[in-house]
Amino acid sequence: MTPDIRPLTETDWPAVWPIIEDVIRAEETFPYDPAMSETVARGMWIERPPGLTVVAVLDGAVAGTAKMGANRPGPGSHVSTASFMVAAGSRGHGVGTALCRFALDWARRQGFASMQFNAVVETNSAAVTMYEREGFQIVGTVPRSFRHPAHGPVGLHVMYREFDRG
Amino acid sequence: MTPDIRPLTETDWPAVWPIIEDVIRAEETFPYDPAMSETVARGMWIERPPGLTVVAVLDGAVAGTAKMGANRPGPGSHVSTASFMVAAGSRGHGVGTALCRFALDWARRQGFASMQFNAVVETNSAAVTMYEREGFQIVGTVPRSFRHPAHGPVGLHVMYREFDRG
Repeated sequence: MTPDIRPLTETDWPAVWPIIEDVIRAEETFPYDPAMSETVARGMWIERPPGLTVVAVLDGAVAGTAKMGANRPGPGSHVSTASFMVAAGSRGHGVGTALCRFALDWARRQGFASMQFNAVVETNSAAVTMYEREGFQIVGTVPRSFRHPAHGPVGLHVMYREFDRG
Repeated sequence: MTPDIRPLTETDWPAVWPIIEDVIRAEETFPYDPAMSETVARGMWIERPPGLTVVAVLDGAVAGTAKMGANRPGPGSHVSTASFMVAAGSRGHGVGTALCRFALDWARRQGFASMQFNAVVETNSAAVTMYEREGFQIVGTVPRSFRHPAHGPVGLHVMYREFDRG
């Protein structure tokens, strides 16, 4: 099944917060504050226009979420970025891939020239492999810059892909 | 002459803001919003503890400024970062080097394991050369991710150095 991806609405938040909470508390894949409150998480995750936050709905339930927008302001504002989180019970079903493809299409339509991920945990091989399949390259890896609870200090990849100029 | 480096105080801001304003309006070295207001700049540049913002004083005048702190929260909080700005009339006098050395010493004393720069404009050769002299390496370069007013799209380096474990 392919998830349905649509903009997040106010009523989605109660289903989205547990996904974010699980991911940040685990400290395995995002360099976020693991003690982040729900209020702070809401402000951090819900992008204001021109950015966008979406949910992936599978079998009628929110299975994942993504946010997307400019990676930097001013002279860097032609580069987009995005973040993806998938509910623990929904991993391995293509939800992350669907969210990534949605973000790439969105960024291209918005006129961005490329997409950059600033901090992909190198041990998160599901994500790294998926990003490479979707056309991203590892630009570089900052060694030992993420403290993984099981693996210790691991690298953070900077990943990047440009869009075809059509 | 070696500049004196000390924490920024409230009364320094009127001397610091013109330095920041010149740098961000020029759009040559920082991926910041060039239209940033003084109020937003103040909130962005003045770090709260445990971060620190300093000024470099040369011949009794503020010649440069730096901010320093953690690059990321949570599992990335052992990596520091810093930003440096030098007044146009004071460049080439070692102010940037002095600020960088101060930041490295500060970060080491604070217990950080390393320092990372996320977006060094590759055409800013004065900065790149100085960072390399101070022990930083280019981890990778995101191509065409900074629109330079004279050079067009140029790369942004991710630069990094670890501290000796003493």
